[in-house]
Amino acid sequence: MRAVIPYKKENAKSRLSPVLTLGEREKFVELMLKDVVDTLSKAGVDEIDILTTSIYSVPDDIEANVIVSELGLNEVLNTYLKKTNEPVLIIMADMPLVTPQHICEITTSDKDITIVPGKGGGTNILYIKKPARFSVKYYGSSYKTHCDIAKEMSQSVFVYDSFLASTDIDEPQDIVELLVHGHGMSKDYVEQKFGIDISNGRIKLSHIV
Amino acid sequence: MRAVIPYKKENAKSRLSPVLTLGEREKFVELMLKDVVDTLSKAGVDEIDILTTSIYSVPDDIEANVIVSELGLNEVLNTYLKKTNEPVLIIMADMPLVTPQHICEITTSDKDITIVPGKGGGTNILYIKKPARFSVKYYGSSYKTHCDIAKEMSQSVFVYDSFLASTDIDEPQDIVELLVHGHGMSKDYVEQKFGIDISNGRIKLSHIV
Repeated sequence: MRAVIPYKKENAKSRLSPVLTLGEREKFVELMLKDVVDTLSKAGVDEIDILTTSIYSVPDDIEANVIVSELGLNEVLNTYLKKTNEPVLIIMADMPLVTPQHICEITTSDKDITIVPGKGGGTNILYIKKPARFSVKYYGSSYKTHCDIAKEMSQSVFVYDSFLASTDIDEPQDIVELLVHGHGMSKDYVEQKFGIDISNGRIKLSHIV
Repeated sequence: MRAVIPYKKENAKSRLSPVLTLGEREKFVELMLKDVVDTLSKAGVDEIDILTTSIYSVPDDIEANVIVSELGLNEVLNTYLKKTNEPVLIIMADMPLVTPQHICEITTSDKDITIVPGKGGGTNILYIKKPARFSVKYYGSSYKTHCDIAKEMSQSVFVYDSFLASTDIDEPQDIVELLVHGHGMSKDYVEQKFGIDISNGRIKLSHIV
């Protein structure tokens, strides 16, 4: 099997702009990518491809193949899947809460397709045993779309139910989850910048001054 | 074992007021309570206590004991735990995404305490084998607090990682999860009122007109 991580650094994570500058966001997405690669390595995945739009956006010290393409997310992934003759794990780069145990559990399912839903109807991880018999369609209600595609293709589906793996880091409130439940370099990074404010009975992010 | 559900109907779920009227919110919390009771029953839990501030707030047709108290959440639960000599599952009433399988997995853990984290540092479910040797402290960062209390009391902890069980319904965006992943009466209720808007690439709740 191999894993593929779509990755974009330039002006990434604009929804975090209320709490992180452009430079901080670019540093943060790089650290999240490193955490995801580290998690995959610890789970025994040794073939890791990073799909990106610019070779310069991927740090040099990362142990992964870099594939550069200017195609959109769905087009580049579907081209990749068509060319691949072994099981593929598609994992997003903004999921530093995923652990090696999650990856092991996902990749040992006996179903054809394993889907890890993300918040808001999204898809955070897809494990596809026969990539030639599947195609992806991210954005919008992709969780339901991927379930439908699997059904159309007569592929059996396992839905992997995990709070940590459902948490991609898109908005300031997601950083709270990283502070509370996280590990790795991206957690260390946000711990330097943020604290937790519980003055109002609910946890909110607060800047460390 | 027995299960206990803290429940408040009057002016409940004020954070849903942008999308549901007071009357609709009161109906909705009642349906979510019924779904949680139904899930517990299907999981084989036959002793269910509902802790509430008014006897009139609990629907007559619900198969559970009703305990009325004007104490605050932590005080009433800690009084309850002190008096109970069997394992207790504390589950919030706003968790219609929980399934019987979750309940079975949580209550068969071999650890002293099982904690199901909720979004934003909260605690959604606690399973406590020896209630006299534990106390709860909800609000704020209760997940970490409950882990700390277990440690102080030398109780072993299992963290149950579930997206569906981490999703309590507090805010409009949470209703999206109920529409996408839900089941039961509360899902049917919101399906009558809301659709899903994916025009902007991300799923948002939209009123059915």
